[in-house]
Amino acid sequence: MTRTRFHQGLEELKHKLLAMGGMAEKAVDTAVDAYRRRDLKLCQQVFQGEKAINAIEREIDELALDLLAMQQPMAVDLRFITAVMKINADLERVGDQAVNIAERVINIVKLPPAELPVDVPRMAATVAGMVRRALESFLEEKAELAEAVLKLDDIVDRMDDEFYAVLVNKMHQQPEITDQALDVLLISRNLERVADHATNIAEDVIFWVRGADIRHNANHAASD
Amino acid sequence: MTRTRFHQGLEELKHKLLAMGGMAEKAVDTAVDAYRRRDLKLCQQVFQGEKAINAIEREIDELALDLLAMQQPMAVDLRFITAVMKINADLERVGDQAVNIAERVINIVKLPPAELPVDVPRMAATVAGMVRRALESFLEEKAELAEAVLKLDDIVDRMDDEFYAVLVNKMHQQPEITDQALDVLLISRNLERVADHATNIAEDVIFWVRGADIRHNANHAASD
Repeated sequence: MTRTRFHQGLEELKHKLLAMGGMAEKAVDTAVDAYRRRDLKLCQQVFQGEKAINAIEREIDELALDLLAMQQPMAVDLRFITAVMKINADLERVGDQAVNIAERVINIVKLPPAELPVDVPRMAATVAGMVRRALESFLEEKAELAEAVLKLDDIVDRMDDEFYAVLVNKMHQQPEITDQALDVLLISRNLERVADHATNIAEDVIFWVRGADIRHNANHAASD
Repeated sequence: MTRTRFHQGLEELKHKLLAMGGMAEKAVDTAVDAYRRRDLKLCQQVFQGEKAINAIEREIDELALDLLAMQQPMAVDLRFITAVMKINADLERVGDQAVNIAERVINIVKLPPAELPVDVPRMAATVAGMVRRALESFLEEKAELAEAVLKLDDIVDRMDDEFYAVLVNKMHQQPEITDQALDVLLISRNLERVADHATNIAEDVIFWVRGADIRHNANHAASD
């Protein structure tokens, strides 16, 4: 195996990871669209999409293992490839969260519509942006962008807290829509988990970029 | 670096992962004890423990990277080391769930006690057993044990569904304890997430063990 062949493999790995990120982000968008439109067909799309996400997850893992086995990788490539494997696992779980949201939507559609003053699509847009930026920070090796993702996570946590307060209040005022409020509360939790996965990715990027620095800069420990 | 040195490193890696598994499991136990006893001191122990878990997570990652860099690992060692890195990430998130439970407990203790007919400690014991078995299946390379973890996950999912039904029913009957019921519902979700991490580990083990077979047994694809 030549060095060129190895570098082609790395490029392919990046390309696949980017594709997977797009699929995971789309899954979340579709699930939230399903919520917004009370559309069961969109739920089915999310379930179909999960299979494709699982398949590409395995492809990425296998390619990463092949690259690790191909030749003695340099430390910097080693860190890159193992970071890809971790990010890959997080993206797959973003897809799982989209499935959880879609399952909640199936439940919601059975219940009478309820007016709930929380902006789920706004939270979803923030969260999807975190996933996109986390992946971008990785592929462009930008630790600052990864730091921005960590800040967005605080915003999402605050939204989740706010939704929680609003929805519990609603349950107290109108106990008859407790079930609907609970479903939305759990969707909010699912979105918060997606944000956690984006945060995990961002932390891996920071660790990876700084880890690469360690070689030049002996005492630079990764923070957590 | 000699082959012997490499194998010592692998043993150390196993040893550390086992220690981490014990810490993660203890974190869940302690958090659930905190719930059972309404004990804020135990919550603090969980928060302290999380720092130790994060520290050992980094140690395991660094050791794994050192081993990968040390010499051209054989395919079987490569899969082992990368599986350790994935399992490591899951165990760290088990610790995060324990922290989430402890945070919920801090909330619960502020509220008047409420009689809620769900057996959280039983669910927690099942879930902690899953984590322990998943790790055991990895260290002993037993795919059957990993399969057993997947079955337990179905049981935990059913418990979670049952808790959900019971708690929502309780909210309808006694709206004044909605907050307490909701806290317990979310603890149940956190435990279910721990079970998901154990399931992820078990799936990695099955993939790893069967992946190792591929070399002997060409067409044996890993299932998902």
